[in-house]
Amino acid sequence: MRLGTAALGALPPLLLLLLLLLLPPPAWPDAPQARALPPREEVARVARFIVHECDWGAVATLSTLPAVGGRPFANIFSLSDGPAGGSSGVPYFYLSPLQTSVGDLQANPNAGLTLSLAQTGFCKKHEFDPQSPLCAHIMLSGTVTKVVNDTEIAFAKKSLFTRHPEMKSWPSDHNWFFAKFNITNIWVIDFFGGAKTVTPEEYFKAKP
Amino acid sequence: MRLGTAALGALPPLLLLLLLLLLPPPAWPDAPQARALPPREEVARVARFIVHECDWGAVATLSTLPAVGGRPFANIFSLSDGPAGGSSGVPYFYLSPLQTSVGDLQANPNAGLTLSLAQTGFCKKHEFDPQSPLCAHIMLSGTVTKVVNDTEIAFAKKSLFTRHPEMKSWPSDHNWFFAKFNITNIWVIDFFGGAKTVTPEEYFKAKP
Repeated sequence: MRLGTAALGALPPLLLLLLLLLLPPPAWPDAPQARALPPREEVARVARFIVHECDWGAVATLSTLPAVGGRPFANIFSLSDGPAGGSSGVPYFYLSPLQTSVGDLQANPNAGLTLSLAQTGFCKKHEFDPQSPLCAHIMLSGTVTKVVNDTEIAFAKKSLFTRHPEMKSWPSDHNWFFAKFNITNIWVIDFFGGAKTVTPEEYFKAKP
Repeated sequence: MRLGTAALGALPPLLLLLLLLLLPPPAWPDAPQARALPPREEVARVARFIVHECDWGAVATLSTLPAVGGRPFANIFSLSDGPAGGSSGVPYFYLSPLQTSVGDLQANPNAGLTLSLAQTGFCKKHEFDPQSPLCAHIMLSGTVTKVVNDTEIAFAKKSLFTRHPEMKSWPSDHNWFFAKFNITNIWVIDFFGGAKTVTPEEYFKAKP
């Protein structure tokens, strides 16, 4: 049994204040709990939503590590497609040649990127298993390349540094540079019935 | 300003009960907040810890999809290396030939698997960026193959179904089967200074 708000009204104001002070602080803010998933049939919007909600993703490359050369290799990278509320749809990265996988991308920029709402509070909140189609996730294919245009560098920097403030203080001797995922193919799993494809045109046109 | 427990003692018992009833329910249990990360220099233990804490991971394959054939492809899969507290170190999967990536694995079982404490509450709690070495993560290389031994099938089933109860009710016409990641190479990023390698022998010998 839990008490309703009616019971609260019956308490003297000072006691009510006391009660409020005793309540634990609000939980860590979780973007997906604030923004609602677009209707699942609007697949391009769902893809844009996932890309904007996720702060990191798993990137697949063809390894250049001697032990596993030529084999598929998965690694974690922070990313951002824009500051909160300013989605561009383009996943930007802040990379260093010292990172495993970055050597792979320099040798062969072809890459896969997967992002899931399992990374956010969404799937846990709704009790969707990470492998359930209802725990919406996407698979992107394309290339990862260095951002060279000054205007785009400024946008990538703003996108990443506002959502990953720690990056500002990462050691300069790591030769960090901004990079982006150039999306050529998109698969969305957001409902039963298998992965759906979305073209980059549909994706970039969709309301995030 | 927040009130200490001393203030609670001064309240009449009935009011204390009222207060307790008004408190929100406990948060979703988060294993990493319950189990402590092993000392970071014990790299093999850290790898075992991450594998046991994570309920899902990103798998890299060589794609067999006509649109991106031969390219690296990243996808999300639920996994379990054992029931809670019963870690084996072997990531088990519950796969269907209908899933994207499973066709890739049937054509070429070489795969990468990456797992990060960013998937758990750990990195957020400690305010480590997902790409920070302090947000411990691992990259595994190996093959994904079907589990055929009856004893191992029983263990895989118990490992997965206890931690992914939804799997029990997944549609039987999807021809689900148990599979495992046969680990050949392990890289751990859990501190500054670059990825450290761990041999499968060290990994399986380590206390999880």
